[in-house]
Amino acid sequence: MGIVVTNIKRAERDAADALGKYGVATVHEAQGRTGLMSPRIRPIYRGARIGGTAVTALATPGDNWMIHVAAEQCQPGDILVVSPTSPSESGFFGDLLGTLLMARGVRGLVIDGGCRDIADLQAMGFPVWSRCISAHGTVKETVGDVNIPISCGDALVNPGDVIVADDDGVVVVSRLRAAEVIEKSQAREDREAEIRRRYAAGELGLDINNMRPKLAERGLRYVDQADLDQ
Amino acid sequence: MGIVVTNIKRAERDAADALGKYGVATVHEAQGRTGLMSPRIRPIYRGARIGGTAVTALATPGDNWMIHVAAEQCQPGDILVVSPTSPSESGFFGDLLGTLLMARGVRGLVIDGGCRDIADLQAMGFPVWSRCISAHGTVKETVGDVNIPISCGDALVNPGDVIVADDDGVVVVSRLRAAEVIEKSQAREDREAEIRRRYAAGELGLDINNMRPKLAERGLRYVDQADLDQ
Amino acid sequence: MGIVVTNIKRAERDAADALGKYGVATVHEAQGRTGLMSPRIRPIYRGARIGGTAVTALATPGDNWMIHVAAEQCQPGDILVVSPTSPSESGFFGDLLGTLLMARGVRGLVIDGGCRDIADLQAMGFPVWSRCISAHGTVKETVGDVNIPISCGDALVNPGDVIVADDDGVVVVSRLRAAEVIEKSQAREDREAEIRRRYAAGELGLDINNMRPKLAERGLRYVDQADLDQ
Amino acid sequence: MGIVVTNIKRAERDAADALGKYGVATVHEAQGRTGLMSPRIRPIYRGARIGGTAVTALATPGDNWMIHVAAEQCQPGDILVVSPTSPSESGFFGDLLGTLLMARGVRGLVIDGGCRDIADLQAMGFPVWSRCISAHGTVKETVGDVNIPISCGDALVNPGDVIVADDDGVVVVSRLRAAEVIEKSQAREDREAEIRRRYAAGELGLDINNMRPKLAERGLRYVDQADLDQ
Amino acid sequence: MGIVVTNIKRAERDAADALGKYGVATVHEAQGRTGLMSPRIRPIYRGARIGGTAVTALATPGDNWMIHVAAEQCQPGDILVVSPTSPSESGFFGDLLGTLLMARGVRGLVIDGGCRDIADLQAMGFPVWSRCISAHGTVKETVGDVNIPISCGDALVNPGDVIVADDDGVVVVSRLRAAEVIEKSQAREDREAEIRRRYAAGELGLDINNMRPKLAERGLRYVDQADLDQ
Amino acid sequence: MGIVVTNIKRAERDAADALGKYGVATVHEAQGRTGLMSPRIRPIYRGARIGGTAVTALATPGDNWMIHVAAEQCQPGDILVVSPTSPSESGFFGDLLGTLLMARGVRGLVIDGGCRDIADLQAMGFPVWSRCISAHGTVKETVGDVNIPISCGDALVNPGDVIVADDDGVVVVSRLRAAEVIEKSQAREDREAEIRRRYAAGELGLDINNMRPKLAERGLRYVDQADLDQ
Repeated sequence: MGIVVTNIKRAERDAADALGKYGVATVHEAQGRTGLMSPRIRPIYRGARIGGTAVTALATPGDNWMIHVAAEQCQPGDILVVSPTSPSESGFFGDLLGTLLMARGVRGLVIDGGCRDIADLQAMGFPVWSRCISAHGTVKETVGDVNIPISCGDALVNPGDVIVADDDGVVVVSRLRAAEVIEKSQAREDREAEIRRRYAAGELGLDINNMRPKLAERGLRYVDQADLDQ
Repeated sequence: MGIVVTNIKRAERDAADALGKYGVATVHEAQGRTGLMSPRIRPIYRGARIGGTAVTALATPGDNWMIHVAAEQCQPGDILVVSPTSPSESGFFGDLLGTLLMARGVRGLVIDGGCRDIADLQAMGFPVWSRCISAHGTVKETVGDVNIPISCGDALVNPGDVIVADDDGVVVVSRLRAAEVIEKSQAREDREAEIRRRYAAGELGLDINNMRPKLAERGLRYVDQADLDQ
Repeated sequence: MGIVVTNIKRAERDAADALGKYGVATVHEAQGRTGLMSPRIRPIYRGARIGGTAVTALATPGDNWMIHVAAEQCQPGDILVVSPTSPSESGFFGDLLGTLLMARGVRGLVIDGGCRDIADLQAMGFPVWSRCISAHGTVKETVGDVNIPISCGDALVNPGDVIVADDDGVVVVSRLRAAEVIEKSQAREDREAEIRRRYAAGELGLDINNMRPKLAERGLRYVDQADLDQ
Repeated sequence: MGIVVTNIKRAERDAADALGKYGVATVHEAQGRTGLMSPRIRPIYRGARIGGTAVTALATPGDNWMIHVAAEQCQPGDILVVSPTSPSESGFFGDLLGTLLMARGVRGLVIDGGCRDIADLQAMGFPVWSRCISAHGTVKETVGDVNIPISCGDALVNPGDVIVADDDGVVVVSRLRAAEVIEKSQAREDREAEIRRRYAAGELGLDINNMRPKLAERGLRYVDQADLDQ
Repeated sequence: MGIVVTNIKRAERDAADALGKYGVATVHEAQGRTGLMSPRIRPIYRGARIGGTAVTALATPGDNWMIHVAAEQCQPGDILVVSPTSPSESGFFGDLLGTLLMARGVRGLVIDGGCRDIADLQAMGFPVWSRCISAHGTVKETVGDVNIPISCGDALVNPGDVIVADDDGVVVVSRLRAAEVIEKSQAREDREAEIRRRYAAGELGLDINNMRPKLAERGLRYVDQADLDQ
Repeated sequence: MGIVVTNIKRAERDAADALGKYGVATVHEAQGRTGLMSPRIRPIYRGARIGGTAVTALATPGDNWMIHVAAEQCQPGDILVVSPTSPSESGFFGDLLGTLLMARGVRGLVIDGGCRDIADLQAMGFPVWSRCISAHGTVKETVGDVNIPISCGDALVNPGDVIVADDDGVVVVSRLRAAEVIEKSQAREDREAEIRRRYAAGELGLDINNMRPKLAERGLRYVDQADLDQ
């Protein structure tokens, strides 16, 4: 029933590193506001920011067997991305599997299911973005798939895509667009640095972006409270 | 379509400062258990406690244009309160707008929508209470309203009201009742200090508040486990 | 209407201490993956890990009277477990009640409702696992029950059972099974230490647990990406 | 603590009747996409469509006393709108109160809380829009307010406003804007009738609304699947 | 690991029949507002009202094996009550198992998980109250328990208890209290018939229940809108 | 920014028709329990069952422009599948767009967002499966994509795939597997007819599927209640 696709094509590791540095919000904007996972996927602890290449796994609810299978397919620089075939709040992942993945050079886990041993994972420095925190153990009975396109956190993930994850959530960058998105991310950061400087100096977005004419055109008007009170 | 009310009447800044010090739980109790926002509105980081005067904005889902418009109406000591006209999990606010608002002396943001760049906002020390954390960008296409009464987090907010926000959530105090609520908050704190002392010394609420007669009257009875086991 | 059962039988305090050290994930596994509370029950702050014996209370939504009644039944080493008779997000518990319970040697609170004053509770070091954080005050009008079996966080809790709670959530161990579960927890920890060592050394779960034959039998097959692309 | 405002100013009954006929979607559009309650407020049965004038009540979670107080303030043609001061899933309302309100000519209930006896209410033909269905009874211990502005289902409701409710949800129309909104609703219906006729005849919105130039300008391009496959 | 308890003691079938006729809201009130399941447990179709004796099953998330085991323990007049050990939205139950249970005289199913084939189940007239509707199939790999006390929908269910379910939800009546609750349900219905008659005739709850003095005592006051406007 | 892929390859219409007749639960099982959308996607009315070929659209939250663009790409027998790039509860679709799609022979809509005019859509017989019901109007400002692979309701949908939807939810069948899934669906129906007959005659799944040895092997044991009571 299940298949494991081997020797997938991955985005360049340098590209993943570079995108990881820009962070989720910038990368998401740079690629046209696509690829962002749902806010229901949250980090188990604050402060991690990673970029890496996706190894994907499709699992049965309450069954973490495919994580073991996927682990073998992981290389240094990868991020494992796991989705169940139906919503599941079981604890698919804990510190043991975290140890296994760290030993393989995996940078983190993104899972649309539950995670446990979160204190240990934080102590180890292995970051996880998950749907919930749950200690509920899983079985190993049903085969699924590894390295096929999956839906995770409402986003489409292809094996080899770049995953960027930080405190703001998780974003997916298509392997084929990584170089373009890096460029646009840098351009955006440059633009934002200038805007930040001007905002810090007290300028308004209304003025910097010349919003007033368009606001007026769309019907915005100003009324003094004193006139309303009469 | 949209209006911006200028020159609103604000609660006194001293009153907002004073209420901020009492914190959400005390202020909420002091004004008769009203004005509390829903538990879905949570701080993006722990440890902030603020009081300020409300500037309000009503936005379209996925559109943060009105935050720019509202920013101009903000004065030092204000807290910006934003609600979409329909539930929305987009990321309306990030570190750029945080920079802009800080430059104007705004003390924080309360939004019944999403917030992003939370690591940066924490580093800057600009606190936000939001419905969720989401990096998803917003557009600037539809006008809304600024400084009209709005519903935010299930609470009614009038422009110029006092907003108090801390780790427990957010509470709204009517501009007209601020002085009264300060007085009652202080009275409550005084009472609680005494109760805390007695609790710490091992006394029970049952005794301090003489609850036993009313409990018995309402039918509470005590049964020994040994009697149940027979 | 309500009853308070006195002189309940508790698990041994040593057993509760021992189980507390193993933590939620281990204990939950050791007793056959039962007794875990729902992921909706979360700690108000990170880093606490406790074990103790349950005193239970069944309350009316929005009414915390029974916490006062239950407090009197608490002994050092207990954990108070509270459930409303219907879902409720009111703030049943704050720092005052925390002070009272700490003075009695209670180790923590588990509540399928709201908690407030969370900054104070963290400062005091009194841990709470709750359904939400809410400052909304409660009344004291309706009697409920203390020390009867209750459902809390989707788990069944009998008075005197062992409660273990940490960053992963909350698990309940039957008073009668405590000794057995300690033994199995230790066995599990021993096994896991060995597995952790091997995982850290780069071995795979596929090999350590000899999963490959069963995976093949259930139909898993490997396909090279290059073959798919043709 | 609580107040009941008597002799409120209501929108004209004819206006409420007229708005009720247009239904929620049309009225909501006609007034600029404001005033809509959250999708969490749903009818207990399908097929009702009503318009009426709001009598408002602010209640304590799990306490329906204020519904009795508000009932006395209701007149034929009113719709009672009730909100708790904090989220509550208790069953505030059932067939007995439905009988009482029907006898007073009230057209329906909107409540950001639970409703029970839904089979009876449907048989009686008394429609309710609620947050959930729950049989859990409520107490009568805490006073609240009647006929003050409230937040219900994330919308702001002033006493005397027009409420329109149908299978799509609930919308609030300001008393002062009722006449204007009727006019705009009729204009919208007229426009829609023409569009519906053209859509039914096979025309596209792309053509009727001349969307193609703006789509192209914003960057939309067409690619043949065959070209992508090469 | 798992046990099946045989020859459980059941409430009298006549008692279950009688309680079923009163319905959920009445029975829940009659037993002091306890035993009600959470509003998240909803009927898959409207119009069924049943009473029966509980056979309970505790299952693993995504595993419906124990339903087969429990089916053998069911007798005519029973209602099967199933809970997973952790939240699960899989489709544990469909028309095939419905056929099996109907053949054994089972009156319905209550499950804190998913149900499928709902159109067929409605056509067959086999009512189900479930957490969600999901077609996702389950495995048969892990043993659980049958006829032990369980937590379902936030309520505690002992095998042999009476279950009453209708459009308002599900309530559990302790086997030992069934006779008492019937009596109180009848008394309540009698009282309600009289109140309904008076409400229909235009009397107010304020008057029938003499609420005005207590309202005044608790601080409720009446203010004319005209006085507020000055 | 956005692209529209034209001339996509569709599954055969006969295959879509055939799969539609089997319904969601059967098809989902027949293809190995994959492709099912989340239970959050529900029909706006009961009783529809359709099969068709997917035209997909990726939209911005609160913006339904791409539905107009996608409509032009629809052919008779298609089902339109729409997802926002981030969770959105706006009302993207109503009776006007329903009229347009019906005129083009589209069989239904699946949308991970809100739908309105549900009474009209039911009267027209145009079925919709949606995340929620909301009248909140959308804008037409941001381009998205049509006929690219999308994630909808936690499932991956490729343009041209078969969509099957009924009261149980929505399932996606890969265009390339349609023939195989039809065959397996028929085989499953044949098997189920036999099982249904035997269940109706009073046989147990325990016996038909010879479960008892495996249950015993996994540790299930039977205990008489009378023995437990001693």
